[in-house]
Amino acid sequence: MAENIQNSSDLKQTVGYYLYDCLKREGITEILGVPGDYNFSLLDILEKYEGINFINCHNELNAGYAADAYGRVKEIGALITTFGVGELSACNAIAGSYSENVPVIHIVGGPKTKVQQQHKPMHHTLLNGDFDVFRKVYANLTEYTATITAENAVFEINTAIQKAKETKKPVYLLIPDDVATQTIMSRDISLEKKQTDQSSLQAALQHIDKMIEKAQSPVLLSGVYVSRYSLQAQVQQLVDKVNLPVATMMMGKGSFDESHKNFIGLYAGDLGSKEIQNTVEASDCILAIGTIWSDHNTGAFTAKLNPLNIIEIQPYSVKVGMSVYENILIQDMLKELLTKINKRVDYVKTAASFYSDDNISLDEDVSSKYYYSRFQKMLKEGDILIADTGTLGFGIAQLRLPKGATYISQSGWGSIGYGTPAAFGTCLAAKNRRVILFVGDGSNQMTVQEISSMLHNNCKPIIFLINNKEYTIEKYLNVAEKNTHYNDLPSWDYSKLTTAFGGDSFTAKVYTNRELDEAIKKAEVQCNERLCLIEIFAPQMDAPPIVHKMTKVLQQMQK
Amino acid sequence: MAENIQNSSDLKQTVGYYLYDCLKREGITEILGVPGDYNFSLLDILEKYEGINFINCHNELNAGYAADAYGRVKEIGALITTFGVGELSACNAIAGSYSENVPVIHIVGGPKTKVQQQHKPMHHTLLNGDFDVFRKVYANLTEYTATITAENAVFEINTAIQKAKETKKPVYLLIPDDVATQTIMSRDISLEKKQTDQSSLQAALQHIDKMIEKAQSPVLLSGVYVSRYSLQAQVQQLVDKVNLPVATMMMGKGSFDESHKNFIGLYAGDLGSKEIQNTVEASDCILAIGTIWSDHNTGAFTAKLNPLNIIEIQPYSVKVGMSVYENILIQDMLKELLTKINKRVDYVKTAASFYSDDNISLDEDVSSKYYYSRFQKMLKEGDILIADTGTLGFGIAQLRLPKGATYISQSGWGSIGYGTPAAFGTCLAAKNRRVILFVGDGSNQMTVQEISSMLHNNCKPIIFLINNKEYTIEKYLNVAEKNTHYNDLPSWDYSKLTTAFGGDSFTAKVYTNRELDEAIKKAEVQCNERLCLIEIFAPQMDAPPIVHKMTKVLQQMQK
Repeated sequence: MAENIQNSSDLKQTVGYYLYDCLKREGITEILGVPGDYNFSLLDILEKYEGINFINCHNELNAGYAADAYGRVKEIGALITTFGVGELSACNAIAGSYSENVPVIHIVGGPKTKVQQQHKPMHHTLLNGDFDVFRKVYANLTEYTATITAENAVFEINTAIQKAKETKKPVYLLIPDDVATQTIMSRDISLEKKQTDQSSLQAALQHIDKMIEKAQSPVLLSGVYVSRYSLQAQVQQLVDKVNLPVATMMMGKGSFDESHKNFIGLYAGDLGSKEIQNTVEASDCILAIGTIWSDHNTGAFTAKLNPLNIIEIQPYSVKVGMSVYENILIQDMLKELLTKINKRVDYVKTAASFYSDDNISLDEDVSSKYYYSRFQKMLKEGDILIADTGTLGFGIAQLRLPKGATYISQSGWGSIGYGTPAAFGTCLAAKNRRVILFVGDGSNQMTVQEISSMLHNNCKPIIFLINNKEYTIEKYLNVAEKNTHYNDLPSWDYSKLTTAFGGDSFTAKVYTNRELDEAIKKAEVQCNERLCLIEIFAPQMDAPPIVHKMTKVLQQMQK
Repeated sequence: MAENIQNSSDLKQTVGYYLYDCLKREGITEILGVPGDYNFSLLDILEKYEGINFINCHNELNAGYAADAYGRVKEIGALITTFGVGELSACNAIAGSYSENVPVIHIVGGPKTKVQQQHKPMHHTLLNGDFDVFRKVYANLTEYTATITAENAVFEINTAIQKAKETKKPVYLLIPDDVATQTIMSRDISLEKKQTDQSSLQAALQHIDKMIEKAQSPVLLSGVYVSRYSLQAQVQQLVDKVNLPVATMMMGKGSFDESHKNFIGLYAGDLGSKEIQNTVEASDCILAIGTIWSDHNTGAFTAKLNPLNIIEIQPYSVKVGMSVYENILIQDMLKELLTKINKRVDYVKTAASFYSDDNISLDEDVSSKYYYSRFQKMLKEGDILIADTGTLGFGIAQLRLPKGATYISQSGWGSIGYGTPAAFGTCLAAKNRRVILFVGDGSNQMTVQEISSMLHNNCKPIIFLINNKEYTIEKYLNVAEKNTHYNDLPSWDYSKLTTAFGGDSFTAKVYTNRELDEAIKKAEVQCNERLCLIEIFAPQMDAPPIVHKMTKVLQQMQK
């Protein structure tokens, strides 16, 4: 085997090489992961492969998060872990990709085929002879799983990638260590692709047209699938044509250009701005494109939308009022809509920014009253914002994004700790864009190692870290019991931490609004050269208005 | 609900309180975990509960590892996580407990019953309405799973705990947030316990007696189940009676008193000491008690043992040569053996320590040639040693343990990163014993946060950290390709790290044997007051003899 992969013409015939060719064709230039003895042959081939770099993370959960964020930016991500011990550490991240609709190819290096067939009691197994058990775990958390052989490699690899792209879900490929270096057996392949049912499409189109035609105050809700299927341009054309107002919800944030004159802001039921709520809930025709009606996406189910007024365009179906039209691809539906719809309304208003720094003195102690408006001011075209789950995840969702900006957050899955590794994956996926991470100390402590990865891969994000020694969001979410200690955190010195990790960085500790203002000005320059970390010492239980509103809603529900 | 659990008499009637009563009865005084909004009511009750403390870890994987180590020391451990995002981060740890036979009760707080029944698209779900999917994941990785209701709580909680104790495997309980505070419905319970089939036992006993009677050179192999079922005293009585030599393998290390005159050392096939190998492999009667025949436990399957000469006593069966006797509890079998066996051999030899510092100058650069013998010298009665997976996991296995010492390592599952959180769990479980952690930088970087947990919980382990900027073991295990970069690590300053984590510690960086010697002398004093961390700057690719032998065996197998 060792001989095989030293010969470069043989190397190109291997299953591993073929896999990387397929991933490179999708635009993947980095694969995240962690080495382990069952994925050595995969990694040995990858080190020789031109066009894709293997990037180490500090553990597999972090690698999974980073691959997810990479997949959000580049439309697809990939991850390599080792059997059992490696892959199982990534379960949370991959389930997150499922929940949040991110196509991630999870490649797992496994024990040799013969060892598996003999059911030997190998390390990294349950020692019960079952080598299929971890694939079965992942069958619950992914769209597709396969165990690769030289014979099925071409079919299974292509099927898995296609399914990931079609459904925007993660998939799982188990590649035994010997198979990675084997010569693939066949290159012929014919895969069926999902296609639109034309009669269903036409029926839906007529229904939609009729509903929009008679609408007095149509509104468009742009959802997460608009980003995932890269349909931002088509949605914007539709908006320009009809001239209707556009809102997003938490998960769809960033799917519509927030500098566009028709963008009105974040719709979050009772939790968001009253004005936006009135516009959306009073509408007699809500064109919801790729939206998800989850709790955090609907202001804890406080959204009061009449289903009869909703046109819902989903990846593979359309719902108009109570009528469902199946087997319609979202991109086909949008294309037809653009041609067919001739309605034009006379909406003119443009929304202001949600946060303002009016009446806030720079001499005050730093708090969310100021910092959200200061964040708003620093944003520029093309920025990538990452907000970890927590009070920041809610607060940052109400910033107005500049043109070309990307917003990354887990508003559905909501795994605390996602942000820091996600920033790493983002920096790798978008080397020439400014990456800004907003993270709480609770989140950051879960996955802090990836600050080291960023330092050692010369990534230069600006990191805002709220240092307040508690899981603030958890304290707000617990409406039954206020006097608890289990949400307290140890106090870390994050500036010293970057030094301990051994990289070049700019750090600042800010206690007042002025210090934050000055630190941001410095970071805006420093971030061209090095990673920037600004620790914000905000008071405990400091949170933006949306979090206070949510607590009230939860208290109501508790009664 | 909030009202309910403020009333202390009501509190005692709740499912949550009942659960903690059951766990306290098993000796659990700490539960590890991470808060999340679906486990608030469980944690609210726990904060009020007397006799068990909730201990925060920095993430759920780490909490799972810590609970596993706790379970090794106290015979059972427990873990609380939140639904989806929390529990899935712990999959690797729980699968490890399965592989390594540690009873861990994994308690997961879930969404309210009604929300589940309505299949609402809640945060921390796959947003597909499936609330049973994570339990299904864990059904692959645990001995038993159950979703708790007020009606089934008594039965399911007791069943799960009993199964964990009987099989020494992890179990999983999903407790919806509302159920934790509900009043339990019934306290009557009758569970069937596994029992020994007496005729099977007698048949096995006769067969064993015959085989031992005619044996010329019997040997005893003490395995992992001896520790797990706490049968060390019975095994030692048997050894004292028969006077036969005793060896352990990797997974069974610590299951027999290594200061006992009959202990000969670690048996590891071709990888261990030749003398021990000869003694074991030449034996005409190997009494293997609770052993597991896995790859790392048999020197990568180089153990040359004639199955016809083996008496294998397992938790629920006995195998004598080729005859299998089912349904025999290991504790019953040992008890009968002790009564029945009258054989006595005249074995006298006592093994020397494996490592010696003869001919090593203190002025040399520090390396494994010296440090293993120095570790050997510092050990004292009652120490708990934790060796993370890696070169240290192999090397430390050949130390001779003092009387009453406990050895914790994942020789079966082998998840790199286990050690640091395991040290935390161990410190909690054994507050008055000295805990010594041996960990590589690769391992430590994966789960480094728990150094912070140890500092903030006033734990005082002595940590030896090999700082050599690589996954050394991985480089040895890859016999096909030597010139790789993916096993390189960033360089951290671990002494600065403990400062950044904000706790009181003693740290030292050692470059020579003398510096190590001096640092150990200081740490032996300092560890009464604070956590001690000694960074050992050993050369790259430095490894003990057993690792070099393993590489040779793997190279042979590759041919």
